[in-house]
Amino acid sequence: MSAPASIDLPGGGAVVCRLGGQPLRDGGRARDCDMTIAEEVPVGFVYNGFSYAVMMATPDDLEDFAVGFSLAEGLIENLSGMRAASARASGEGIELAMELAPDAFAHFLRRRRVRSLRGHTSCGICGVEDLAGLGSAPPPARTDARGISIEHEAVHRALAALRDFQPLSRMTHCAHAAAWASCDGSLRLVREDVGRHNALDKLVGACLRADIAAVDGFCLVTSRCSYEMVQKAVAARFPALVAISAPTALAIRTARQAGLTPIALGRGEQPVVYSGADGAGLA
Amino acid sequence: MSAPASIDLPGGGAVVCRLGGQPLRDGGRARDCDMTIAEEVPVGFVYNGFSYAVMMATPDDLEDFAVGFSLAEGLIENLSGMRAASARASGEGIELAMELAPDAFAHFLRRRRVRSLRGHTSCGICGVEDLAGLGSAPPPARTDARGISIEHEAVHRALAALRDFQPLSRMTHCAHAAAWASCDGSLRLVREDVGRHNALDKLVGACLRADIAAVDGFCLVTSRCSYEMVQKAVAARFPALVAISAPTALAIRTARQAGLTPIALGRGEQPVVYSGADGAGLA
Repeated sequence: MSAPASIDLPGGGAVVCRLGGQPLRDGGRARDCDMTIAEEVPVGFVYNGFSYAVMMATPDDLEDFAVGFSLAEGLIENLSGMRAASARASGEGIELAMELAPDAFAHFLRRRRVRSLRGHTSCGICGVEDLAGLGSAPPPARTDARGISIEHEAVHRALAALRDFQPLSRMTHCAHAAAWASCDGSLRLVREDVGRHNALDKLVGACLRADIAAVDGFCLVTSRCSYEMVQKAVAARFPALVAISAPTALAIRTARQAGLTPIALGRGEQPVVYSGADGAGLA
Repeated sequence: MSAPASIDLPGGGAVVCRLGGQPLRDGGRARDCDMTIAEEVPVGFVYNGFSYAVMMATPDDLEDFAVGFSLAEGLIENLSGMRAASARASGEGIELAMELAPDAFAHFLRRRRVRSLRGHTSCGICGVEDLAGLGSAPPPARTDARGISIEHEAVHRALAALRDFQPLSRMTHCAHAAAWASCDGSLRLVREDVGRHNALDKLVGACLRADIAAVDGFCLVTSRCSYEMVQKAVAARFPALVAISAPTALAIRTARQAGLTPIALGRGEQPVVYSGADGAGLA
């Protein structure tokens, strides 16, 4: 996949800006101040000239976003499915133009035809028009599903190290991160975005582009673990997904069916592995 | 609007379930346990027989969800636009069937025709297919925009009281809340959902159904303040939106253009009112 040409993005492609504000105080005696604020930009995904979806995102790591989103959407299976990606300013947003390889493009057109009949999928389930459309896109079955052994110290090590790799979050208090960590908790890659789905998409794309085999280790996200997050982690073939907050029941069931191990820190400091077993009969 | 008939929902309409898990410990000596987990169910929105969108949501307060989502989508302007709503189990999800009044339905059909040409909007921007589609749906201009005076103590009072009205969050550690509070911080209504957009939609619908004039006071959400959250708050004509985390730049600009005051607790304990003024020249 070729590198995008230099990008003339809105605001010069800056991911933050300075905007004014005022602390709320009694009697309104507060002084004006200005703060570092995260930019949020519409990114339009265009495949071989066909518009597909628009995501609200942090305007960086766009090549990772292109690859990861396309993989999560099932449009490509690996890097060979995408020949090129380039970004350019378009009105108030960014147009991310991708060139799919012939096989992937043929698949895209079939998918687009189905979509034109009954809505389309953008970020996971969101955008599906009816319940039948939901059923037609199950997560891909893991054929290499296997146990993954993670010590709780590895989760804490990864979490503690993560804070040093979240510059956007530190500056703006308004960004999620997704990371890939080795089994011992060493961080290999981190991506940030104002949207949690986007951060995960960017991480998935970054792993693929850096040729990191996301097999022995786990994905760590600073957000909740809902159905869509599991869908993306399954598409990336991650063996385990560690989330800051507790997962939903559908996320647990979907993960277990697909061979993904869901782990969360939702109950105090001790990470929990969710087996998905029916609670009846347990203590 | 008529009340929905008794609903035979998946899992009996329960919003939580018990599922098994195991704390991650050294050497795997942990005991199995079971935990209360939030259900997450696909809810399909159907208007006068036409499928429109699917949201992943907590399966309760569905009438509030029907009204609030429809208002945020611009399909109705008030309760008179919706004649009835009913919910029924449909496969793995819930079908929320609504009957729009003739004028609203005519508007829906025109909108659906536009959508069939170029994608559609589901939760705010998400689902829009191209950047032109984004530009065609600006937030409605506030004609009654005016200053709203909120003391910081009111924000803290509302936030402190909110915890008592978040049973789903307390049980599952996996739910967002949206609340309407009077100017003095007294909570009037609270709604919860596994999704932050849904919680806000449900609150907007609940305010409308309870005939609470959401004029003197503020909306409080336990999530970030992104563009879509501002869109929904503007559609509900809330004068102020208080969020737990800092807003994005686009959220601030959009709010200010529409006459909505964005406030957040993103920087420590002191709430900040974002004026949106260019930071250049400020201290």
